[in-house]
Amino acid sequence: MIYITRKEQFSAAHRMYREEWSDEENLRVFGKCSNPNWHGHNYILYVTVKGEISEKLGLFINLTSLKQIIKEKIIDKVDHKNLNVEVGFMHGKVATTENLAISIWNELKPAVEKEGAFLHCIRISETENNTIEYYG
Amino acid sequence: MIYITRKEQFSAAHRMYREEWSDEENLRVFGKCSNPNWHGHNYILYVTVKGEISEKLGLFINLTSLKQIIKEKIIDKVDHKNLNVEVGFMHGKVATTENLAISIWNELKPAVEKEGAFLHCIRISETENNTIEYYG
Amino acid sequence: MIYITRKEQFSAAHRMYREEWSDEENLRVFGKCSNPNWHGHNYILYVTVKGEISEKLGLFINLTSLKQIIKEKIIDKVDHKNLNVEVGFMHGKVATTENLAISIWNELKPAVEKEGAFLHCIRISETENNTIEYYG
Amino acid sequence: MIYITRKEQFSAAHRMYREEWSDEENLRVFGKCSNPNWHGHNYILYVTVKGEISEKLGLFINLTSLKQIIKEKIIDKVDHKNLNVEVGFMHGKVATTENLAISIWNELKPAVEKEGAFLHCIRISETENNTIEYYG
Amino acid sequence: MIYITRKEQFSAAHRMYREEWSDEENLRVFGKCSNPNWHGHNYILYVTVKGEISEKLGLFINLTSLKQIIKEKIIDKVDHKNLNVEVGFMHGKVATTENLAISIWNELKPAVEKEGAFLHCIRISETENNTIEYYG
Amino acid sequence: MIYITRKEQFSAAHRMYREEWSDEENLRVFGKCSNPNWHGHNYILYVTVKGEISEKLGLFINLTSLKQIIKEKIIDKVDHKNLNVEVGFMHGKVATTENLAISIWNELKPAVEKEGAFLHCIRISETENNTIEYYG
Repeated sequence: MIYITRKEQFSAAHRMYREEWSDEENLRVFGKCSNPNWHGHNYILYVTVKGEISEKLGLFINLTSLKQIIKEKIIDKVDHKNLNVEVGFMHGKVATTENLAISIWNELKPAVEKEGAFLHCIRISETENNTIEYYG
Repeated sequence: MIYITRKEQFSAAHRMYREEWSDEENLRVFGKCSNPNWHGHNYILYVTVKGEISEKLGLFINLTSLKQIIKEKIIDKVDHKNLNVEVGFMHGKVATTENLAISIWNELKPAVEKEGAFLHCIRISETENNTIEYYG
Repeated sequence: MIYITRKEQFSAAHRMYREEWSDEENLRVFGKCSNPNWHGHNYILYVTVKGEISEKLGLFINLTSLKQIIKEKIIDKVDHKNLNVEVGFMHGKVATTENLAISIWNELKPAVEKEGAFLHCIRISETENNTIEYYG
Repeated sequence: MIYITRKEQFSAAHRMYREEWSDEENLRVFGKCSNPNWHGHNYILYVTVKGEISEKLGLFINLTSLKQIIKEKIIDKVDHKNLNVEVGFMHGKVATTENLAISIWNELKPAVEKEGAFLHCIRISETENNTIEYYG
Repeated sequence: MIYITRKEQFSAAHRMYREEWSDEENLRVFGKCSNPNWHGHNYILYVTVKGEISEKLGLFINLTSLKQIIKEKIIDKVDHKNLNVEVGFMHGKVATTENLAISIWNELKPAVEKEGAFLHCIRISETENNTIEYYG
Repeated sequence: MIYITRKEQFSAAHRMYREEWSDEENLRVFGKCSNPNWHGHNYILYVTVKGEISEKLGLFINLTSLKQIIKEKIIDKVDHKNLNVEVGFMHGKVATTENLAISIWNELKPAVEKEGAFLHCIRISETENNTIEYYG
């Protein structure tokens, strides 16, 4: 089994909050991340897929295909966007990096499998100091 | 002359646009950075000050003081904020990183000089690939 | 299961040696790391905890709590300190990064579990080129 | 169980292609990486070994030994070399990073085990954005 | 005056040598970088341009234009290429990073000036440890 | 004029203090950096030299020579050492990074000039967030 990790980046605005709560309640639970005027990050996204390499080619997935899948399914939908307002696959969810990782997993899994590979891990660094991982 | 550079980070939302223009006009000039729903970044701020060291102490500015100045004058005002809406020293300016660097220079200069040092450079990386420098 | 990794840093002096050995013996076994006059590092500490997110909040541990735990239990005790001389939880152990990782695991485990999460991994980079991981 | 990861770097030229195919066929399958005039990378190699530490020494493998093994078995053979033409353990294989990781695993395993440790993972970053992992 | 630095990357093969010298003579002068079978790097290119910002727009050069110029004039010509064999603007020059920086300066200067900006610096990191700067 | 920057690293212990002051007085002036039990850092040293390249060779200084000079004059004397106690060129000076940069400048200047190059800048990062530069 070989694992390939592709690193991509996107810049987005977000806010962590529950609509039915007051700003004060959201502030108490989510802290400064619940700022009603938004804030944002340069998110770094690492997508790890795995598979068994073909002896003939020495690889199991075409990196160009993988990049294209991540671009179409994720980057084009989140880069320079508002995660709460504009991103379909985040609708109805609190815009935490945790939920973002799970949603990106769900978006990418079928497309990666169609390429004959397995999705292994979604890792997202919200800042240099905070990183989330999800293995399905 | 010795130069000290202090690195800080903040996460903020912004939008590049001119209010009197339509969204289409702003999109034509500023591209995806003019998204009306905002986007955001982890900005990395490098503040460089210079001075002549005291032979007795082997330094010319107390790093704790410098950190405190940057925190009070800048980080507390921009971190987890919306640069267009919530940051006083950006009011009336297009929220480009260029304008941000100039504004931060103007905010920090008097406080740095009160410490007996000179402000030399404000450098801001908006993303890993785009960096602005301003020397006054 | 979601994994969160928090990155922190601290600067400390240390020396790898066994007291009952001569300096020559320590040098033979531990190399330049046994210098009797100490040396030091900027240690980078990665703490990974895991848990199942609450659907309501989209997270399972409050990052502010996690930061506070790591600060109180570890950083305040090791930053700008001598690992051999001043750090209670390293007493009686050779001050290797391996032992440091195990000791930090033991210090953090109960506090992390009190927050309803599981400690998953302690990773410490002593230099950019040498990294230790411990999974309990 | 403790894991140690040692990071090393080497710069090499390579080309992904199958000799029996035309340049056009190789271009179709391997893309720009099949350029007949070669291209190259600064490869970053992470070697992770694991073991149980001796209580007496607080470590299970001498880092100097590990560095020496990686230098002799790998770095001296690939640094400033052409992976297709000059590296014995890559002969007859397509010079993908996938195959490189597997080959390095095979080269290092016996030497690491002779030191009383276990080889756990070979990770190679071909560029900042593409990383391969192999666990045997 | 505001300075903008754009970071780009490319992977290329090269060899430092003078054709009229023997391999031994080249090895003596250029060391392992003269390997006749080539080697390669992930070059990191930093292009710094300067100008005075328009108060109306808060910037002096469109970053998209700058990226396009660097892509067309440089990256498309050097990425996944052999610097000695395939890059027109390096013909007849020893393929050192020094000469590469000067050549890239000469390629970019007219195009940057046509955008109303000034080229300030070409910086190239051949490896993490070796960086060249040229200011014209 | 071409500028070359060579990056090196060393790990050392140090303490900022004046011998004739009490621990309390040192603590008041130098903060936690005056810990009598020492602390330490992974210092990153950047040495920038400049010169005019020979057209024949495409370079003005042999990088191997430059590395050797830095190794002999600096790294061998400071790596895994105590800057206050064991480093001759720091004797009688407060062990600040500012003084370290000036001292390293003085140590390297004659040797760099003997190679026909000019020393341009000594840059030292004590931590990722604090960097000192000295230009002579």
